Amino acid sequence: MSDKAEEIKALAPWEKRQTVVFMSDFGLADGAVCAMHGVADAVCHELRLEDLTHYIPQFNIWEASYRLIQALTYWAPGTVFVSVVDPGVGSDRESVAVLTVSGHIIVTPDNGTLSHVAKNIGILERRRISETENRLSNSQRSYTFYGRDVYAYTGARLAAGIIGFDEVGPLLEPSPVMLSIEDPEISGDIISGTIDVLDTRYGSLWTNIPDTMFTSSGIKYGDNLYVTVTVRNRVVFGSTIRFCKNFTEVPVGETLVYINSLLNAGVALNQGSFAQTFGVGSGEDWKISFRKIR
Amino acid sequence: MSDKAEEIKALAPWEKRQTVVFMSDFGLADGAVCAMHGVADAVCHELRLEDLTHYIPQFNIWEASYRLIQALTYWAPGTVFVSVVDPGVGSDRESVAVLTVSGHIIVTPDNGTLSHVAKNIGILERRRISETENRLSNSQRSYTFYGRDVYAYTGARLAAGIIGFDEVGPLLEPSPVMLSIEDPEISGDIISGTIDVLDTRYGSLWTNIPDTMFTSSGIKYGDNLYVTVTVRNRVVFGSTIRFCKNFTEVPVGETLVYINSLLNAGVALNQGSFAQTFGVGSGEDWKISFRKIR
Amino acid sequence: MSDKAEEIKALAPWEKRQTVVFMSDFGLADGAVCAMHGVADAVCHELRLEDLTHYIPQFNIWEASYRLIQALTYWAPGTVFVSVVDPGVGSDRESVAVLTVSGHIIVTPDNGTLSHVAKNIGILERRRISETENRLSNSQRSYTFYGRDVYAYTGARLAAGIIGFDEVGPLLEPSPVMLSIEDPEISGDIISGTIDVLDTRYGSLWTNIPDTMFTSSGIKYGDNLYVTVTVRNRVVFGSTIRFCKNFTEVPVGETLVYINSLLNAGVALNQGSFAQTFGVGSGEDWKISFRKIR
Repeated sequence: MSDKAEEIKALAPWEKRQTVVFMSDFGLADGAVCAMHGVADAVCHELRLEDLTHYIPQFNIWEASYRLIQALTYWAPGTVFVSVVDPGVGSDRESVAVLTVSGHIIVTPDNGTLSHVAKNIGILERRRISETENRLSNSQRSYTFYGRDVYAYTGARLAAGIIGFDEVGPLLEPSPVMLSIEDPEISGDIISGTIDVLDTRYGSLWTNIPDTMFTSSGIKYGDNLYVTVTVRNRVVFGSTIRFCKNFTEVPVGETLVYINSLLNAGVALNQGSFAQTFGVGSGEDWKISFRKIR
Repeated sequence: MSDKAEEIKALAPWEKRQTVVFMSDFGLADGAVCAMHGVADAVCHELRLEDLTHYIPQFNIWEASYRLIQALTYWAPGTVFVSVVDPGVGSDRESVAVLTVSGHIIVTPDNGTLSHVAKNIGILERRRISETENRLSNSQRSYTFYGRDVYAYTGARLAAGIIGFDEVGPLLEPSPVMLSIEDPEISGDIISGTIDVLDTRYGSLWTNIPDTMFTSSGIKYGDNLYVTVTVRNRVVFGSTIRFCKNFTEVPVGETLVYINSLLNAGVALNQGSFAQTFGVGSGEDWKISFRKIR
Repeated sequence: MSDKAEEIKALAPWEKRQTVVFMSDFGLADGAVCAMHGVADAVCHELRLEDLTHYIPQFNIWEASYRLIQALTYWAPGTVFVSVVDPGVGSDRESVAVLTVSGHIIVTPDNGTLSHVAKNIGILERRRISETENRLSNSQRSYTFYGRDVYAYTGARLAAGIIGFDEVGPLLEPSPVMLSIEDPEISGDIISGTIDVLDTRYGSLWTNIPDTMFTSSGIKYGDNLYVTVTVRNRVVFGSTIRFCKNFTEVPVGETLVYINSLLNAGVALNQGSFAQTFGVGSGEDWKISFRKIR
């Protein structure tokens, strides 16, 4: 892996891309996000400044990790991400920058935010941010806004080519702090997995089961599947649902299984909220299984 | 009209403007909008990427159509709009790009989103998006996120000058799918129309009655008007309200009729919500009339 | 002060910076913010267009004033801010542009929005916007959207170098309309001040008491402080709380006093909402005091 890291670093695609994408749990109602953009603009006026989302539920590291993987691969290699979901701000959690196998950089507290990226994409190199060099001038008395004082500043300096990746700080083992992420599995004719997240505004369930697992089990569009949802082993939903290519194959208000935009299995109510209608949530306690009706 | 289209296409103002403005009903809480921006940035790093709103109420095509007309004309000709309010995603609704009389391009599912633009501005040319050429690489297994895979990608390639407007796909009749939009009318001393939309955060009523209809009826600032609001022919509000140039002509908490920023008649409660206070909504069922008190 | 203004104007840092940062109470659910961006882009396509927040509570001039000071200093000198919290739109409140001691420009209704900037940074020059020259073409019949027709347009033309600061309009006294802002004070061993604002999404209290006042009173990290909150002289909270450098020094769900990102004293509940838990609000009626337990 080290060779690959050296190869990417020699190309320094972030210096060509000059783009920083911010994510946080700050919301957009105060000046915090704007202060981070301001710091980055002051570092280098040529940077493109974008936002992933600032509505990560407060302190929800799992969702931060998931949203990164949802958006990161659609950005060109070299794009720098700055993530600030940081319940342990100022504690001994590490502040790091990582270089991914895909050639992206992520600047973040190392608190689990990197879990999905580490598992699904891979991390080539991880460095602790050395705060003596990589901290906004005159911010030494501030201990509660690393997003502005350290992460935005460091991300912007990387994207601008002012510092190279090696200048972030000391090299660490490439393995970041990991949340527990379960793998989906096939047992007999049952495919089971986790409800990773809700498709926020629509209330559809997004699972960790890839479309390839459906294909390899001989499940085809048009098949009827028995869907079971449990929370801590208690069944909260069980019913037969059709596997559709498009939402419009069922009438408005009916359920369907589909493949979502990340190519994982999803469950939805056409033009309604499956999660709200059936009282279903997401996270590691929420399991789902699919069995083909023959 | 065709000559005008050829003339604009020869100038290709979008190649100079290099701007894509996104609209959707996705909200900003997950990674969907960011993925669309990422696709566009990867197509061409020089593009300006902006947002109209992503808080269109889910599946509300009427409001999508209205918000387009609210913002589009303030952008320079050549600006490309990508609209993704798409309850029929993946169905046989057409995916199109249109060239407007004003020289803007709109990329959208053709489901009624173009109604107000077609009626108030005019469409010169409409083309079906040919998805074999105009689809993000390796997105063929994804059927539920045309916004990212087809619309953002096509809009960005147009704005970047990578494809010309004719390369979008086959020419269709210029008339898009239309929602029913009623015209306001004058009958005797009564001007009547529809409450098109609410001024979201303030709760004022925005009607489809242009200021010119007030002028031609001899209504002047300072006049008292009898205002009636009905929903499905049932009266929900009736009272005399003064026609003011500015909100501050009435005390805080009092009602006024005014001309809104699109030069249509509006009804408001100074520093309060008229819609909430009087239980008034918007849409084709909500009618309003004004009669000058003499 | 006038010499300093002339000096900054000769340098015209805004022409180099070409950046407009917008703030309003419009929310992001309709096309209003997008129309302002469109006007600015049409003035000059090279401008960087950014947003401070558009979720100022409606008509809340105090919070607009506070959010400006929260973000402004993190942007390079020359950045132009356009603020549109304007309950008196169209009334005789002045429309102004000001040049600050820090070299920033703010375009705003002069209704108190400049209070914190005037008090904490200082204003070198204030000019009335001459609307004959500085108004979007063909917007003369619109009286209710100065943000788009006058402020965005004028801010963009300043940032683009199309007009110089003197061309905004006639010179006024540098002192803008001021909200009453109280100073914190020390009396014996009690430091008292105001709860200026809530840290919106987290529910922490942000006071007007600078960290230097703690230092000069001999308060050190680790000290226990007796904290009292009153609203209109009625006590709503009183308890001993530890003064911490980081949130993580107390368990989740416990209270702490800390120094916030603006270097003022704050009071929080680790990973919870202090404001909601204890029914505390913000604004001039809300007072707070700290006394060191010895």
